[in-house]
Amino acid sequence: MENKQNKMDVLRHSLSHILAAAVLELFPKAKFGIGPTIDDGFYYDFDLPRPLTPEDLPIIEEKMRALIKQNLAFKQEELAVAKATALFQKTKQNYKVELIKELSAQGQVTSDKKKLTTNHLPLVTLYKTGSFVDLCRGPHIKSTNEIPVDAFKLMKISGAYWRGSEKNKMLQRIYGTAWKSKTDLESYLKRIEEAEKRDHRKLGKELELFLIDPTVGMGLVMWQPKGALLWHIMEEFWYKEHLKNGYELVRSPHIGSRQLWETSGHWGFYADSMYPPMEVGRSLDEVKAGKKATSKEEYLIKAMNCPFHLLICNARLRSYKELPLRWAESAAVYRYEKSGELSGLTRVRGFTQDDAHIICTKSQVKEELKRVIDFILYMLGIFGFKDYAIYLSLRDPKNKAKYAGDDEGWKFTERVLEEAAKEKGLVYQTDIGEAAFYGPKLDFKIKDCLGREWQCSTLQFDFNMPEKFDVTFINDQGKKERPYMLHRALFGSFERFIGVLIEHYAGAFPVWLAPEQIWILPVGSRHEDYAKQVADKLRQDDIRVIVKSDNETIGKKIRDGENQKIPYLLIVGDKEISADSVAVREHDKGDLGPMKLDKFTEKILGEIKNKN
Amino acid sequence: MENKQNKMDVLRHSLSHILAAAVLELFPKAKFGIGPTIDDGFYYDFDLPRPLTPEDLPIIEEKMRALIKQNLAFKQEELAVAKATALFQKTKQNYKVELIKELSAQGQVTSDKKKLTTNHLPLVTLYKTGSFVDLCRGPHIKSTNEIPVDAFKLMKISGAYWRGSEKNKMLQRIYGTAWKSKTDLESYLKRIEEAEKRDHRKLGKELELFLIDPTVGMGLVMWQPKGALLWHIMEEFWYKEHLKNGYELVRSPHIGSRQLWETSGHWGFYADSMYPPMEVGRSLDEVKAGKKATSKEEYLIKAMNCPFHLLICNARLRSYKELPLRWAESAAVYRYEKSGELSGLTRVRGFTQDDAHIICTKSQVKEELKRVIDFILYMLGIFGFKDYAIYLSLRDPKNKAKYAGDDEGWKFTERVLEEAAKEKGLVYQTDIGEAAFYGPKLDFKIKDCLGREWQCSTLQFDFNMPEKFDVTFINDQGKKERPYMLHRALFGSFERFIGVLIEHYAGAFPVWLAPEQIWILPVGSRHEDYAKQVADKLRQDDIRVIVKSDNETIGKKIRDGENQKIPYLLIVGDKEISADSVAVREHDKGDLGPMKLDKFTEKILGEIKNKN
Repeated sequence: MENKQNKMDVLRHSLSHILAAAVLELFPKAKFGIGPTIDDGFYYDFDLPRPLTPEDLPIIEEKMRALIKQNLAFKQEELAVAKATALFQKTKQNYKVELIKELSAQGQVTSDKKKLTTNHLPLVTLYKTGSFVDLCRGPHIKSTNEIPVDAFKLMKISGAYWRGSEKNKMLQRIYGTAWKSKTDLESYLKRIEEAEKRDHRKLGKELELFLIDPTVGMGLVMWQPKGALLWHIMEEFWYKEHLKNGYELVRSPHIGSRQLWETSGHWGFYADSMYPPMEVGRSLDEVKAGKKATSKEEYLIKAMNCPFHLLICNARLRSYKELPLRWAESAAVYRYEKSGELSGLTRVRGFTQDDAHIICTKSQVKEELKRVIDFILYMLGIFGFKDYAIYLSLRDPKNKAKYAGDDEGWKFTERVLEEAAKEKGLVYQTDIGEAAFYGPKLDFKIKDCLGREWQCSTLQFDFNMPEKFDVTFINDQGKKERPYMLHRALFGSFERFIGVLIEHYAGAFPVWLAPEQIWILPVGSRHEDYAKQVADKLRQDDIRVIVKSDNETIGKKIRDGENQKIPYLLIVGDKEISADSVAVREHDKGDLGPMKLDKFTEKILGEIKNKN
Repeated sequence: MENKQNKMDVLRHSLSHILAAAVLELFPKAKFGIGPTIDDGFYYDFDLPRPLTPEDLPIIEEKMRALIKQNLAFKQEELAVAKATALFQKTKQNYKVELIKELSAQGQVTSDKKKLTTNHLPLVTLYKTGSFVDLCRGPHIKSTNEIPVDAFKLMKISGAYWRGSEKNKMLQRIYGTAWKSKTDLESYLKRIEEAEKRDHRKLGKELELFLIDPTVGMGLVMWQPKGALLWHIMEEFWYKEHLKNGYELVRSPHIGSRQLWETSGHWGFYADSMYPPMEVGRSLDEVKAGKKATSKEEYLIKAMNCPFHLLICNARLRSYKELPLRWAESAAVYRYEKSGELSGLTRVRGFTQDDAHIICTKSQVKEELKRVIDFILYMLGIFGFKDYAIYLSLRDPKNKAKYAGDDEGWKFTERVLEEAAKEKGLVYQTDIGEAAFYGPKLDFKIKDCLGREWQCSTLQFDFNMPEKFDVTFINDQGKKERPYMLHRALFGSFERFIGVLIEHYAGAFPVWLAPEQIWILPVGSRHEDYAKQVADKLRQDDIRVIVKSDNETIGKKIRDGENQKIPYLLIVGDKEISADSVAVREHDKGDLGPMKLDKFTEKILGEIKNKN
């Protein structure tokens, strides 16, 4: 039984054949690579006598429509390997010949006895559409009349090595997208267009927020002044909210001895994701020659903060009267992600966790969980996020050996975490078997402009760490007791959160977050003094103002300000000077007309205060 | 010719013999190790029939005074090695016998022909004072009447292995201090007492500010909540002042590829001070076996920020209109100092530079230097430092090959730096040959409680980095030009600055800096509600308040508050509740009597605002 997804897949796959058939009509000498489906569409790789240009795409599309309208059938045919090979050799389709050879070698040809040729030879499947024949297992639609002619579009051309190997020839790949209806296609195109505009990598460059430079290393982010100021504004807010919410701050170094990471267990089970050790004690010659140290001391750059926080906890005996401890640290950690997984700010190798650990008694656990949930919801709300999914990740009860902690502990923490989520009215999905090995957790995932979910806020129990560091407190009976430990992050990391934030606001940050809140644009040079006076007045209220006194037309300055997504542009000329006012343009809203400076100041301060 | 220092040395050395003579009178079976001078005094190591206690010290001191009053001569005698050995063997001074044997083996006995015995045997020198004979080269005073009896003091007893080796017996060491006069002794004792009270390592522990744990690594600091809050208060202030002073912020990762550090030149000339590379690409097995990677990529943890800042600068072409760039980053850097050089917070392996780089045109240099000097003086002033020394470090013109940059560049930067210092009225010392290889600099060194100078604020030219990264801007002629680059730090590092700050304030931070500004002490449990109301009111003004409602007497709570050096203790009981007031105790000033809460709030807010 085919589901909806499969139907679209079949349709998209059939369209890739039609694309190939259209290309064949235009380029009779075309050689064909492969033509699979992808998310939202399909592609086909061609070896053509000349490079394609974007102008070719509508022409090929027209050919495809013409073919579709011919109501061509997709005819399946099973042919002996030798015969199929001969067929493709004759048409000089050497890529197909190579594919058949490989299929045979891999035993991936039909060897079902009922289906072998009368001579008991293995078969391959071909599909024929009009004059185009392809080596293909299908399935396909029956006829092109199943394809809506106005619901597909060729998107782009790119180069692709045959079989993905740099040793082979570079072929030309045409990408297409296909949908059930014209409406679906249009909404997809709109989404793509919007997503491209919102892509944080593109905006990061245009707005000069951050840089990733291979000289430094992939996945390692440098922040340009405007990005660093945005970060600072967020961090200041983060600190203030944490201090208000009963957290204390702690700080820890970025490196620790191998012994520390052995104690924590990270060197045992997490070493693959950590940057390798720095071996102190190797002489420079040993280092340069890649030799082993004669006497060594090893340090690892941290991938998490918990070991340090627990050592601080263990600095002296703790009493139940001190609990809960709520210790926050916004700290850079480093994890060696595979280079193929890196992506802008959302998947990096160095990131700044807005981390905190809560150490509390059993009776305090539920209250603490609810406080964290409130804090997460508050933070996501302040930054304007409404579209997020919540996942409650529990242990796989059939595979208990995978997890730290005992049954009783898991039973209690899973129950109390679910109760806290319910009492806070969260709508969540329960994922059995998705817990961390060290405890159950609640994750908040935010969608980026392409609909991909990124885990940001998280709230996790940990049975493992307090055990490893033998963390205890003296309870009200005067006895040693093991506390409960929670990890939590509100942003997840500054890098990722800023990445999704850029896409969320399409770079047009609300005024409280905007690194540059106002540009003052003097119409001519004789208005510059007034512009500076206005700037000085606004700065007295800690408003971030730039005076644009460069030698450009006012129209150009306004366009620049719009492109830089500055919340307010204040234009000042003769009229404004004589009226002691400013002409206000608000981003995406346009001209608000003239306002007295006091009035405008009141307006913007209100917006900053309310974080609008 | 003996200078003053040597005179004191001779006196102190003679006192160590008198100490030994006194110990011999008390313990006729005492065996003697060695007794050299040290800074400010002397010590002697003894092998005694029983452990000494602090109560023994005044008794020994009295014996010493009695011996001094006998006006004993220090008689030098030269004896053949064999004879001296026999002498010490007879008195069972086996440590002396061992020393003579070693001196002979090393050829360190007198072999001056004129001085050999008549039998041409080598000689050793002995000194005799009363009945005490020591193997000693001298020199000594002539007679004990040269020793002022009221200007020395025995300080402490500690254990010390014979010859410093754990394999040998643990001896008992008595430390003494000696001075020219009673006044000098007294002022020394006062200084020592004050220094001990102010020692940031001791206070860091008592006030729970920071931890250094060998499990993490020596020289790597973890900050406990109160220390981290102090840091945060300083950092917040630092950011605010930088933004106000026309700086922009940037941020950079803590690691960078080896290629980056090769480009910057640090891998060439600074590698010995850097933590060794992390070799990514080694499999876990290779890492564990200490083997070389089969295909590797190397990262180094940063020892400085400049390479990143210059890459950010190079992100696009810069125009002269953008200059000066003033880019600040408070960032942790890591340098592998020798373990023997580590000391508390003042010499560490991981430290947070309050770094900034200024990139400007030649015509802007002087103005920028003066701005930085103003900024440094402002910061040092705010934190209450008046006792610092300023050093202008210039190139050694006889050794030009040691330095980057050309004559013209050095001439200009040395001149302009000196001019800026003069125009700002700085009193400085000029050190020829003390410049960095990359440029001249101006250093501000703050004294710690022991009078040691620590370099904190610094302002440095750099000819090297802009060259290495080929940093340029387009000048007003439309041509590429190399800018001038300044490094500067105001604190130097947060760690060191906090270290000297703790000693400067003896842990009693001014109210604006104190992590806990107020403790409210309810007299009894029925006053707790009022205490909490007072706390809530104060917190509305962002004042940091703790309510001490633990079950202790008010006397104990006050003592705890004094010990924790809390700026204000507010005692609340029946009287205060009925008068809507608080009884105020100010640290080091004591009872200020009752105050209306509003009045007190006004007072403390004024102090916070004025950074008193």
